Amino acid sequence: VPADAIPKEWAVGFTPVVQAPRLAAALGLRRLMLKDDGRNPTASFKDRASSVAVALAVAEGAKAISCASTGNAASSLAGYAAMAGLPAFIFVPANAPEPKLAQLLLYGAKVFCVQGTYDEAYCLSRAACERFGWYNRNCAINPYLVEGKKTAGLEIAEQCADDVPDWVAVGVGDGCTIAGVWKGLRQMHEIGLLERLPRMLGVQAAGVAPIEEAFRTGRPPGEVKGDTLADSINVPVPRNWRKAVAAVRESGGTFVTATDEEILAAMRQTGTLAGVLAEPAAAASVAGLVAGRAKEIVGPDETALAMITGSALKDTRNAIRAGGAPTRIGPSLDEVERVVRVGV
Amino acid sequence: VPADAIPKEWAVGFTPVVQAPRLAAALGLRRLMLKDDGRNPTASFKDRASSVAVALAVAEGAKAISCASTGNAASSLAGYAAMAGLPAFIFVPANAPEPKLAQLLLYGAKVFCVQGTYDEAYCLSRAACERFGWYNRNCAINPYLVEGKKTAGLEIAEQCADDVPDWVAVGVGDGCTIAGVWKGLRQMHEIGLLERLPRMLGVQAAGVAPIEEAFRTGRPPGEVKGDTLADSINVPVPRNWRKAVAAVRESGGTFVTATDEEILAAMRQTGTLAGVLAEPAAAASVAGLVAGRAKEIVGPDETALAMITGSALKDTRNAIRAGGAPTRIGPSLDEVERVVRVGV
Repeated sequence: VPADAIPKEWAVGFTPVVQAPRLAAALGLRRLMLKDDGRNPTASFKDRASSVAVALAVAEGAKAISCASTGNAASSLAGYAAMAGLPAFIFVPANAPEPKLAQLLLYGAKVFCVQGTYDEAYCLSRAACERFGWYNRNCAINPYLVEGKKTAGLEIAEQCADDVPDWVAVGVGDGCTIAGVWKGLRQMHEIGLLERLPRMLGVQAAGVAPIEEAFRTGRPPGEVKGDTLADSINVPVPRNWRKAVAAVRESGGTFVTATDEEILAAMRQTGTLAGVLAEPAAAASVAGLVAGRAKEIVGPDETALAMITGSALKDTRNAIRAGGAPTRIGPSLDEVERVVRVGV
Repeated sequence: VPADAIPKEWAVGFTPVVQAPRLAAALGLRRLMLKDDGRNPTASFKDRASSVAVALAVAEGAKAISCASTGNAASSLAGYAAMAGLPAFIFVPANAPEPKLAQLLLYGAKVFCVQGTYDEAYCLSRAACERFGWYNRNCAINPYLVEGKKTAGLEIAEQCADDVPDWVAVGVGDGCTIAGVWKGLRQMHEIGLLERLPRMLGVQAAGVAPIEEAFRTGRPPGEVKGDTLADSINVPVPRNWRKAVAAVRESGGTFVTATDEEILAAMRQTGTLAGVLAEPAAAASVAGLVAGRAKEIVGPDETALAMITGSALKDTRNAIRAGGAPTRIGPSLDEVERVVRVGV
């Protein structure tokens, strides 16, 4: 890739590592940090992969770029394609919710709502890439994207070099995110910039946990019958489960699961006690630390970093479910006082 | 304020100035930059004021903080209060839309839905601050907040010192944002870090333009009868109109208006041609540059910077209105080809 193929503006830049002392106390951890990837340009971790994909597509002279997704991968691709002036063709299943389309359409992507399943949308995207010569950003078949994803690990290593966390918790859907973070951490350790490696805590939704099962049983993932509201990790057939299992095992870590209720509670705790907006799949990392503490996998004297992989602004419906209801009062100071007196 | 009253994590940090060459070409400008304040911690410009308010409240030993707002000021205050561990009491009118409440509730603010008008909610907030000793963040009466808002001007001066834009365009509601940006720019000029000053282009919604009228007529703002979908600048009775008029006049600039249709078109252009998500009030700055070019206020050889004061993720309903509809197809490559052939 020629250096000038990648304009400076596409750089993701460091996302902040936020110290969360009150959330740490609530979870019973010595110290907790949140790596807030909701602060990326399109508000998710996926920007790390899309910036690489779009830069490569431009360098190869591609006339357009494509993927199949309703989630963060698609909105991220659409955003980076808009920055680069590259047409983007996004294939989504017909039942994709409107808010998920908003970001795609505002970035000017051409969005095909395919009357069919997600798998049909995926196959159509791949076939269209072949027929029209579009660059294919579908993660499962593009080996370069992990090089973008690993930048989260590189950043964590640099930002936490003075006090390496004992655990790095990551919500797991397809498996490529946790594998990417681990690759970055390991490379920083190999070149001596990180004196020791954290253990990786992979967190799956209790309803959709094929990789946790594979890790536990040593067998390939079986059929998934449950569901989860955490759409970004709702991946019943993960394509990168081997990389995720290998990364967690190599780190000396483990997998845990969290129910939807636990994920919603973690969303609220993360917002209330740390001022960080996490979408459900992002709050899963915090919910996993709660589970890890309850099972004594993670000790009270240990420190942790939770990857916040996307902003709750991308999923206001579940933000409202997690946040609770406002207090309705008349325009009277006495009514305010009554509420304040009973405690907040 | 003692230095340690303000933890490092509360810092807003520089928001990016994005070069937008394709949007510049579409608008007929020599160069266009976007100052993307949607990238602030709670996704709006208001974080610049809230960080100051919360830091002062902590320094003064306040037990809680309060404001009346349904918009970015409230969600920003709730976020910074959560970061600081300070209880926040937010008063909103009973008709506040649910998505606007999501951010407040997720940050753990105590939200009072007041059965009454916005003015009743505002007065109740002020009265509660007095009775309970809460810190009052209501902008109109807190003189410190402009010191936060001016940081946008300080940053623009530093980021654009080598090539000062001829114009800085800002959407105008209450008037305090454009006055704050101007204060920062002017101070950087006074100390010699900015070699010349840009002209300020104040942009109001055509339906709610009392400050534009005051600027044009030289009289105080009259009664407003129109409306606008750009909620963050929908301020029929602006409290800081004098500061806004004075800032624009001092800069040698002017005011323009943009219709809701022009604002929606600017949202789409900003997303599609620059990859930046702007809420309606934020895209008003871009719509104002379009109007400025049409009226030959802004010349084709001139350069401009548009303040993007909030992210479109805060207003997905209007994002969908601006973005347009997806293309519905069956799962067949021929259907894709037919759409691609007729052009995108």
